[in-house]
Amino acid sequence: MRIDHIAIAVNNLDEAIANYQRILKVDHLEVETVQNEKVKVAMLELGDTRMELMEPTAEDSPIKKFLIDRGEGIHHIAITADDIEKDISRATANGMKILGGLRVGSYGRKITFIHPKSLNGVLMEFCEAPIPRE
Amino acid sequence: MRIDHIAIAVNNLDEAIANYQRILKVDHLEVETVQNEKVKVAMLELGDTRMELMEPTAEDSPIKKFLIDRGEGIHHIAITADDIEKDISRATANGMKILGGLRVGSYGRKITFIHPKSLNGVLMEFCEAPIPRE
Repeated sequence: MRIDHIAIAVNNLDEAIANYQRILKVDHLEVETVQNEKVKVAMLELGDTRMELMEPTAEDSPIKKFLIDRGEGIHHIAITADDIEKDISRATANGMKILGGLRVGSYGRKITFIHPKSLNGVLMEFCEAPIPRE
Repeated sequence: MRIDHIAIAVNNLDEAIANYQRILKVDHLEVETVQNEKVKVAMLELGDTRMELMEPTAEDSPIKKFLIDRGEGIHHIAITADDIEKDISRATANGMKILGGLRVGSYGRKITFIHPKSLNGVLMEFCEAPIPRE
């Protein structure tokens, strides 16, 4: 298992990209809209992990709600699962609370979330296999 | 540059370690007290990065204040700097606000922090060279 990405909710994606590029040496940058989650995402590669900056694309986006309630900041951490079905079964058997079932996230990967109450206030995503590189 | 660790403020370190071990396959676990920062830290290695769980050891610990104000959750992200002096000069020249100067953190590494206002609500640590492995 490894940290796949850290996702940060932002109000303005272009401004946030500029901020992060002032300090980080980004290996690769890619922007994608994830319709399911109603967000526009910038992925900043750092070695074999990434920072994801997320701007809501609709008033009813969950990220919009997060920004209103808590302001800009870290929204979740994502961990690459070795075998997502097995890892999630193990988590559930251990009493972890899963938020919704497996679904499709960016890059068509299977993902699910663990409730922050199960992990000391941290919303954790599990996602399968790393992103294929070109 | 790469993500060195993600630091999470918790009320009870033993309970948090148990929670995280229920879900993560931790390669290596180490507990250390960092006197400077008034915290007891558990480092959970995941591949070449880490999650750090931090419990305050004193009432006047900055982590105690964070827990009172905001509750348990992610406190900061740390990035390994290629050359910390140069990277920090570049950040400052680019208008990033630094929190205090270079100082010594866990494992005797030089560290500093960038103000969350400079990075869309994210407190970012810069630290030099990776932790030596045994």
